[in-house]
Amino acid sequence: MKSLVLNEVKTPFAIEERPAPLTTKGDVVIKLHAASLNRRDFWITQGMYPDIKLPIILGSDGAGEVVVACDSIDHIVADQRVIINPGWDWGDSEQAQDPNFKILGMPDHGTFAEIVAVPYQYVHPLPSHLDFAQAAALPLAGVTAYRALFSQGQLQAGENVLISGVGGGVATFALQFAVAAGANVFVTSSCSQKIDKAISLGAKAGYDYRQEDWHNAAQSDHGEMNLIIDSGAGDGYANLVDLAAFGGRIVNYGATAGPPRKLDMFKVFWKQLRLIGSTMGSPRDFSQMLELVNTHKIEPAIDEQFDLEDGNKAFDRLRESTQFGKVVLRIDE
Amino acid sequence: MKSLVLNEVKTPFAIEERPAPLTTKGDVVIKLHAASLNRRDFWITQGMYPDIKLPIILGSDGAGEVVVACDSIDHIVADQRVIINPGWDWGDSEQAQDPNFKILGMPDHGTFAEIVAVPYQYVHPLPSHLDFAQAAALPLAGVTAYRALFSQGQLQAGENVLISGVGGGVATFALQFAVAAGANVFVTSSCSQKIDKAISLGAKAGYDYRQEDWHNAAQSDHGEMNLIIDSGAGDGYANLVDLAAFGGRIVNYGATAGPPRKLDMFKVFWKQLRLIGSTMGSPRDFSQMLELVNTHKIEPAIDEQFDLEDGNKAFDRLRESTQFGKVVLRIDE
Repeated sequence: MKSLVLNEVKTPFAIEERPAPLTTKGDVVIKLHAASLNRRDFWITQGMYPDIKLPIILGSDGAGEVVVACDSIDHIVADQRVIINPGWDWGDSEQAQDPNFKILGMPDHGTFAEIVAVPYQYVHPLPSHLDFAQAAALPLAGVTAYRALFSQGQLQAGENVLISGVGGGVATFALQFAVAAGANVFVTSSCSQKIDKAISLGAKAGYDYRQEDWHNAAQSDHGEMNLIIDSGAGDGYANLVDLAAFGGRIVNYGATAGPPRKLDMFKVFWKQLRLIGSTMGSPRDFSQMLELVNTHKIEPAIDEQFDLEDGNKAFDRLRESTQFGKVVLRIDE
Repeated sequence: MKSLVLNEVKTPFAIEERPAPLTTKGDVVIKLHAASLNRRDFWITQGMYPDIKLPIILGSDGAGEVVVACDSIDHIVADQRVIINPGWDWGDSEQAQDPNFKILGMPDHGTFAEIVAVPYQYVHPLPSHLDFAQAAALPLAGVTAYRALFSQGQLQAGENVLISGVGGGVATFALQFAVAAGANVFVTSSCSQKIDKAISLGAKAGYDYRQEDWHNAAQSDHGEMNLIIDSGAGDGYANLVDLAAFGGRIVNYGATAGPPRKLDMFKVFWKQLRLIGSTMGSPRDFSQMLELVNTHKIEPAIDEQFDLEDGNKAFDRLRESTQFGKVVLRIDE
């Protein structure tokens, strides 16, 4: 099968013919039509990930058709259009993942290839209103956004929600999901075009976080935020603490700007804030995310599509950090 | 009425005869038999509190007998033994207090006097197994511990709970309440006698937080902590983040050691931690705290008792920070 192979970190991918994956009992074999890139894949190419095993076919997100179904289930049949839950072995607790939790695409070979084998419980029917590229954009970023907003953030309709750094895959799903859930959604970005796109997707307003006083402007215009979804932390985190309402929640699914420079714990306890960490999601999060997408006919935002053979160009696009929505690989179409 | 009056910050209290408080419709007049000191009172004497109005009779916690009951209720009658919920005008949300929330003892005159007038809804029957001194030890520290553990911290029976800085009023109630709730309770202190007392109250073990590696020892001995109740923050906060289990909660009701020096946000999101602020408690918290105390016949730990006239000595004792449990003032007994 044609595969995008990472042979060494910090080197380009090679397009190689590889043997189709070995399957074990309970696996479903899927012929992939689309995959999407995640920041995680990029970190691995840079060697910034623990326990990297090479060579590896990366890729957590994929959509395609069932080639060989599995006797263990009857809701997944041959030729069915499916997507994959890439979060495996989460464990029994909804509070957090087990130590052996893993993501498809490391250490197991992932979706940047024509074929992938997936344990049946991680194979889901593809939402009928989506094409393969849209569906492939959904899994990892979608479940991360869903868990951050709902399972961890406990979003309620009518609340004020701030999504920082809109344009990134997770942030953009968080925007769409929060709008669907009836929240008043606000965004931040350093790019006015991204703010315009966010407003076209239902955001009420957007703010440039490079403006020193942006959080006071936001509060003056729209009041305090009940829920903030952030992946930056760093120096800007203090503004989020100020902007949070009494009893508010700040959920972080990343910290790309490093640790908060100074965390004013007096404000945290006096305002009774909850600073909540969130990582990817459980099987329940994934199923509920699909239900939300199906119910509200949500269409993932796609930044740009590339052929699998142009995988290196796709990663160049990801590296630019100017994208809005997901970067998708088309496979064998 | 005899009163302990603060006329100027950073000066000793004066014992003065003051007119009994004016009452308004709905007030219950209480003849106090005991009051207890809180760290808040000390901060006010040092001028470290916003909007200090002088002269003031301090005191949030009190227990006594009803002199004049109120027509609005029939469960509080003359001569009844009562304690006072000092958290007034909390508001309608269980998530956080309203902006006009206030604590008895500033700006309203408090319990360091022979008489206090209290709106009827804040007057509760005194737990029948307690004397006045024990009951007076309970309100503000008890409700703060209750909210931190249960409403904010969501403690479940069988969980591992760490209470830092045991000996302080809130920490000691947190220890007793968590033991009553069936948790495995661990404590920290810099004082081995305090750890011994904590163990006599049901703690499974204690650690000296001045030992560099104390948190690794605790984890090695007893595993990770599902819930941590802290009022220090500061440099030691990083150890708490390390010691917290995946999906664990760290609740802070104070930050006496200042902001966390460095908050490793990667650990926060990967471990799906919840860092939760908590301040005092709602009327519901107060009622539920009383129910817990009544059900488990919990007896507040009293460090030392002083006569009201010796209020300055009582504050000297509080300032030493060597106490275990509450410092109590006896009034007119």
